Amino acid sequence: MYQNKQFRLASRPVGRPQKETWNFVTEEIAAPQEGQVLIKTLYISLDPAMRGWMNDAKSYLPPVGIDEVMRAFAVGKVLASGNAGFQEGDFVVGPLGVQEYCLSDGRGLNKVDPNVAPLPLYLSTLGATGMTAYFGLLDIGQPKEGETVVVSGAAGAVGSMVGQIARLKGCRVIGIAGGAEKCAYVTKELGFDACIDYKNEQVAEALEKNCPDGVDIYFDNVGGEILDAVLKLINIKARVVLCGAISQYNEKEITGPKNYLTILTQRARMEGFIIIDYMNQFEPAAVEMAQWMAQGKLKGKEHIVEGLETFPATFMMLFDGKNQGKLLLKVADA
Amino acid sequence: MYQNKQFRLASRPVGRPQKETWNFVTEEIAAPQEGQVLIKTLYISLDPAMRGWMNDAKSYLPPVGIDEVMRAFAVGKVLASGNAGFQEGDFVVGPLGVQEYCLSDGRGLNKVDPNVAPLPLYLSTLGATGMTAYFGLLDIGQPKEGETVVVSGAAGAVGSMVGQIARLKGCRVIGIAGGAEKCAYVTKELGFDACIDYKNEQVAEALEKNCPDGVDIYFDNVGGEILDAVLKLINIKARVVLCGAISQYNEKEITGPKNYLTILTQRARMEGFIIIDYMNQFEPAAVEMAQWMAQGKLKGKEHIVEGLETFPATFMMLFDGKNQGKLLLKVADA
Repeated sequence: MYQNKQFRLASRPVGRPQKETWNFVTEEIAAPQEGQVLIKTLYISLDPAMRGWMNDAKSYLPPVGIDEVMRAFAVGKVLASGNAGFQEGDFVVGPLGVQEYCLSDGRGLNKVDPNVAPLPLYLSTLGATGMTAYFGLLDIGQPKEGETVVVSGAAGAVGSMVGQIARLKGCRVIGIAGGAEKCAYVTKELGFDACIDYKNEQVAEALEKNCPDGVDIYFDNVGGEILDAVLKLINIKARVVLCGAISQYNEKEITGPKNYLTILTQRARMEGFIIIDYMNQFEPAAVEMAQWMAQGKLKGKEHIVEGLETFPATFMMLFDGKNQGKLLLKVADA
Repeated sequence: MYQNKQFRLASRPVGRPQKETWNFVTEEIAAPQEGQVLIKTLYISLDPAMRGWMNDAKSYLPPVGIDEVMRAFAVGKVLASGNAGFQEGDFVVGPLGVQEYCLSDGRGLNKVDPNVAPLPLYLSTLGATGMTAYFGLLDIGQPKEGETVVVSGAAGAVGSMVGQIARLKGCRVIGIAGGAEKCAYVTKELGFDACIDYKNEQVAEALEKNCPDGVDIYFDNVGGEILDAVLKLINIKARVVLCGAISQYNEKEITGPKNYLTILTQRARMEGFIIIDYMNQFEPAAVEMAQWMAQGKLKGKEHIVEGLETFPATFMMLFDGKNQGKLLLKVADA
């Protein structure tokens, strides 16, 4: 028997999540029954998409129900198992939720090996985050050598990977990030050709200066004014990869891109994707990502905050641009 | 020597074109020099896209210059030729402009035969309008049998063709048009499965009722609120074909689609196209369209207004939804 601390969705936020959005409760967790696995949560992945799961809207996953444990992907360790697929001591990644322990029926769980890569990497470069960058850029964006790629959220978990992969494919890569420190990280450490500081520069002007040949691919993590500024500069047959719209998730009403008609005049394409559709292609992609890392061609960064109880505040770091690299909540040591 | 009446762009309108937008002038037109063709304009095609050509914005064609003859596609008859490619009595289609006579260097002119089809058809079903419907739906929309297709501007030149071609491909087709008369035309004469009257119905509710299985293809001619209403209902892997946004062309600021994030959550695609990119594929497509017409499977309708001098008012019929079928200006008899 364990005491299991959990964050449950208490009410649906309109705009930014507030104190009353969450219930922080403790309940006893039972021993695993036939088919069940008891898992101790180690690291929780914090993702902008989680904000969308909190809304009562038709989407690619059902909304988190009121009073349900908040949905989150996490890495954990199997403490006890009544499921033939898992045994005590296994490490797994899956939808464990924002809680200390999870009783799972095994669905959606995958085993991971801490001897192959440190556990946090299974939530970042080698997990859904890295896969989002990989398939979003390569499958939806279809980069060609010499093309100009613009990436917003460039210092974030997905954006930082997208830009590096685009460089590996021979593209010119312009990032957009908030603040001089993030921009320096993006250009000096990650090798982007340039990075625009949206907090201190006029994005539209800076884009024009940095993209003299226009934009062939825009990988959009933010939406809003930055999406509009890039749409003004897209080339014929450009691809706008819709990955997210973090600037809009806490708005009461979404602002649509008023420059969307350049998609028409430039015979361009705006396309969305959801990484769970690519699950059965993860393995070879993760192997390629791991090879790039081993060769020093791809750098990851985890931004780890300790303590399950910090979840409400730590989650908001995503929307306030306070993380650099993949934001993880460390819940316990293995 | 002919006296040539012309409409020239006097000033760029902000919002709706006004009286001061146009200069109606008469000038003498010279005899054709070596390489030139003198053409008498018979029918002028009036298209929503012309409004875009009047703006000083980067687009797929350079803007019409101030004091230049307004750009328009038209059918005419060759009166005299110094160009080996054309001779007196030939009928041609091309960018003749909003004027009675055109002195052309032959570029962009194609011969047409009034014995094969009545001349107006070379600007409607068998011309750029019909081709826009054909390639927009088939190449960008990629319809599959049994899918639900929604078409706005359903009683208009392009929309009416799109819906009929979608029906020929085995799709369920829902039109959106303004007024009971247009809706009756669309369902009873053109065979759409249903038509929503946006002037007298709540579009969002009516769409939900008429599209119980969601929307697989949306062929958008109008933009604005209707685009947003359809985006709410798109299915996984839906295609939004951006053909136009007539509701927005006379607005001082474009309203972007606030529901654009369904493109992300539904892994959908919004794509634009410009018909001039398909020029070299027109012939087989026009043959197929002509065959469908001969078999009674495709109906066209021309809305012909007489008199070059009516151009400013007749042009506005497009934006006020006053035309049914392809709007043409008749300038002269052959």
